[in-house]
Amino acid sequence: MKISRVALYRQLAPETRLQLGLSVTNRTICVLILLASLTAILETEPTLRALSPHLFPILETVFVVLFIGEYLLRLYAIGEEPRYRGVRGRIRYIFSFWALVDLIAILPYFLGFMAQDNAFLVRLFRLLRMLRLARLGRFSQAWSALADALKTRCHELLLSVGVAGLLLLFSSSCLYVVEAAAQPDAFGSVPRALWWSIATLTTVGYGDVTPITAIGKFFAGLTAVAGIGIIAMPTGILAAAFSDAFQKKRVYSGDE
Amino acid sequence: MKISRVALYRQLAPETRLQLGLSVTNRTICVLILLASLTAILETEPTLRALSPHLFPILETVFVVLFIGEYLLRLYAIGEEPRYRGVRGRIRYIFSFWALVDLIAILPYFLGFMAQDNAFLVRLFRLLRMLRLARLGRFSQAWSALADALKTRCHELLLSVGVAGLLLLFSSSCLYVVEAAAQPDAFGSVPRALWWSIATLTTVGYGDVTPITAIGKFFAGLTAVAGIGIIAMPTGILAAAFSDAFQKKRVYSGDE
Amino acid sequence: MKISRVALYRQLAPETRLQLGLSVTNRTICVLILLASLTAILETEPTLRALSPHLFPILETVFVVLFIGEYLLRLYAIGEEPRYRGVRGRIRYIFSFWALVDLIAILPYFLGFMAQDNAFLVRLFRLLRMLRLARLGRFSQAWSALADALKTRCHELLLSVGVAGLLLLFSSSCLYVVEAAAQPDAFGSVPRALWWSIATLTTVGYGDVTPITAIGKFFAGLTAVAGIGIIAMPTGILAAAFSDAFQKKRVYSGDE
Amino acid sequence: MKISRVALYRQLAPETRLQLGLSVTNRTICVLILLASLTAILETEPTLRALSPHLFPILETVFVVLFIGEYLLRLYAIGEEPRYRGVRGRIRYIFSFWALVDLIAILPYFLGFMAQDNAFLVRLFRLLRMLRLARLGRFSQAWSALADALKTRCHELLLSVGVAGLLLLFSSSCLYVVEAAAQPDAFGSVPRALWWSIATLTTVGYGDVTPITAIGKFFAGLTAVAGIGIIAMPTGILAAAFSDAFQKKRVYSGDE
Repeated sequence: MKISRVALYRQLAPETRLQLGLSVTNRTICVLILLASLTAILETEPTLRALSPHLFPILETVFVVLFIGEYLLRLYAIGEEPRYRGVRGRIRYIFSFWALVDLIAILPYFLGFMAQDNAFLVRLFRLLRMLRLARLGRFSQAWSALADALKTRCHELLLSVGVAGLLLLFSSSCLYVVEAAAQPDAFGSVPRALWWSIATLTTVGYGDVTPITAIGKFFAGLTAVAGIGIIAMPTGILAAAFSDAFQKKRVYSGDE
Repeated sequence: MKISRVALYRQLAPETRLQLGLSVTNRTICVLILLASLTAILETEPTLRALSPHLFPILETVFVVLFIGEYLLRLYAIGEEPRYRGVRGRIRYIFSFWALVDLIAILPYFLGFMAQDNAFLVRLFRLLRMLRLARLGRFSQAWSALADALKTRCHELLLSVGVAGLLLLFSSSCLYVVEAAAQPDAFGSVPRALWWSIATLTTVGYGDVTPITAIGKFFAGLTAVAGIGIIAMPTGILAAAFSDAFQKKRVYSGDE
Repeated sequence: MKISRVALYRQLAPETRLQLGLSVTNRTICVLILLASLTAILETEPTLRALSPHLFPILETVFVVLFIGEYLLRLYAIGEEPRYRGVRGRIRYIFSFWALVDLIAILPYFLGFMAQDNAFLVRLFRLLRMLRLARLGRFSQAWSALADALKTRCHELLLSVGVAGLLLLFSSSCLYVVEAAAQPDAFGSVPRALWWSIATLTTVGYGDVTPITAIGKFFAGLTAVAGIGIIAMPTGILAAAFSDAFQKKRVYSGDE
Repeated sequence: MKISRVALYRQLAPETRLQLGLSVTNRTICVLILLASLTAILETEPTLRALSPHLFPILETVFVVLFIGEYLLRLYAIGEEPRYRGVRGRIRYIFSFWALVDLIAILPYFLGFMAQDNAFLVRLFRLLRMLRLARLGRFSQAWSALADALKTRCHELLLSVGVAGLLLLFSSSCLYVVEAAAQPDAFGSVPRALWWSIATLTTVGYGDVTPITAIGKFFAGLTAVAGIGIIAMPTGILAAAFSDAFQKKRVYSGDE
């Protein structure tokens, strides 16, 4: 069962099959990435770990072995591209963006052993495993249309973020001035008031911290109303950007 | 009082009266469906059941008898359509989509008796009764315009759901890493942190679970801000899609 | 100081001065309405009533006397319009829409005395006083542009309300099935679960009632995500309607 | 190291370098303003003040000395503009808008000493320090495009604020009528009910106050649904305004 390097390269590189869609190999890899991420998510739950203590480490080892195999195959097949030919080309490939992302998907497994005693590091390495999902980006040329619409209005979106930031500071400063005396724990400083302020301006509204003085409630009401503007501005900009993008497409494709 | 099968078919099939609107018979059926659903909703309330223990079973029996009558009439009248003629045609009709929906509206009544002792099954069969509302779909050709606008932008909407899903995983993973030590019950695993994360990203913000550490609050603030984007993106896409649909209509109808 | 009936009519009827804006008399009446409403709002606060027990009844009497004077002057001046001339015309005027609204602004004062002992009726008559704000509608021809945009998309907006209603019923039924056993008080019937469901679908999220079982949280998460659609659909429809209205205006005014 | 007044003026006045962007001097000033604001924010946190009691006063003094220096340099360099020449011109400059803003950025430092004993005044002067951020407005000609889009739809936006205000009053009056008996503390007057009403209509939903009677919950549900409209209307207007502005730009720039 000998597979030529050309055939392997065509199976692994999504750029070579633009009209054909993802190859069988790459589809399998996508499913593997999703399964590995799901395993990493479920492994964090202690009640599931308790059910079968050996299942998750075994699954993780299987996934890592498969990803190492994929990594080595890619390293071999990439020789088809002229700029990655030879030993120096391979080293250049290893430091290319997607190859590094592939490496990051493998490394946490080995680092995991170093962090056995430190609960925080164990959690951090589990989080790194979930970054494997970023590998899916290699296979998706789909969302460029959406990203383009965002990019053309980047300036306006940043500006609305800036306006939101100033409103955030202003409302938390106001609440700090009027509520600090009544609730020093929640509003005793501007950084503390920011927690309430961000929950209100984004209309999340946890309710763990709320003003209790009449004047504090008055400013809180103004903040909540301003929050509608904070939501309306980026939404309006995005709606206009998408509308623009869809219309341009219609005009160019001669649909009208 | 003999009614021909043709007249009956015209009364029952909404497709035959596109310009005339719903027939008197079908309007009566719509009202019956709404009343039966309202009865099913109110029956779940124990205080109302206690008021008159026999009212709801009697009403339910009346509705089911009427729906069975309607079902049999439809089965008889459908013979007007060539492809549903004869015994084999009738069997084919029974397994057609809307006939199955009609059957689902009747069956829970008979299944209900099997579940007398199991409180969960009783509740489940009551829920099935509410699915009768789906039967209204047979009579509505109205919302196709809205559905079309959704369908043309299906790709972009799915993509924004994907982006939302990744943000959801990322924010719950971050909170798991930084808050698990302080609140193991609420943030002790990624699936647990997902509950907080979904409430924050959708800006619902119940407040039953909130981060208490400073670093947790920082990541929570970022999540809340990202939530605005999560709302702004589908809203923007839908606004652009509707704007497109309304304009196309204006252009085709020569309004401009 | 004799004022002719024509001059009085011109002062009181906003339709006669379309280009000139509101007359001095009508502006004074608008300010009076706002002041009377503010008084009615503040009067409900017991701590303010305690400060000066006689101030609010006196203010209320002053406002009612002024409104009665205005009512009688309008009744006299309306004779300038041919269809309201004579005694029969005046009776026809009394039963016209805005004259009834004017009457409703006066009547609660006299009804108030009947409800001295019943706290609920006292509150209800205070609410009726606030309906005086509706009288401002007589003076505003401004918001017709906004109302027109709403009206042209009335069908789509109603449809999205219908979709929201079905989602509301469906999500509360699901939560009733899975959560009733764990929390009979909050989810023991579909009507009870509706309270949670409406707070979640509108992304208000009080947090006074939240699911506690894992399966309940799963359906709650789906409901919260559906809530984004519930907000996005009317927003998108309105955005498209306004965009349409603004563009039509530009086209007709030859701005482009 | 002698710098001519012309060169200094060119460094300080952003209007003179429209195509070149901000000068090195003005960029440094922007960074200084951001640092001074950050310091003012962090200084409010008692735990940070406790870490090094002398750091914040020293930093504040350094910033104020630098801002005074900048103020004097601006006062000297402004002589390049004909209308601010001579002593009378300088006095006119001192009372110009941006010069007053610059002064407000300096004064709180000196006023701060007067308020040593009054905790509220101390907090108020700290808030004034944060107003320094307003000085950044002098350097930004960027957000005029966004402001223009807002201005052209100012009328519609004000109208939607008016509609929101009426809904706010109406919903809080309703809740006052039906819930005052059950919860006199939270709904005992219209102003008290306003706090709940604003949190619900803006979909913030703290949950510190929620109706408990069935009829109260019914009106609360209606309010929550109305809240979607309150968010949808300004969002729709803004989306249409931005869409209009972007299209006008495309038409004028001949992109289509």
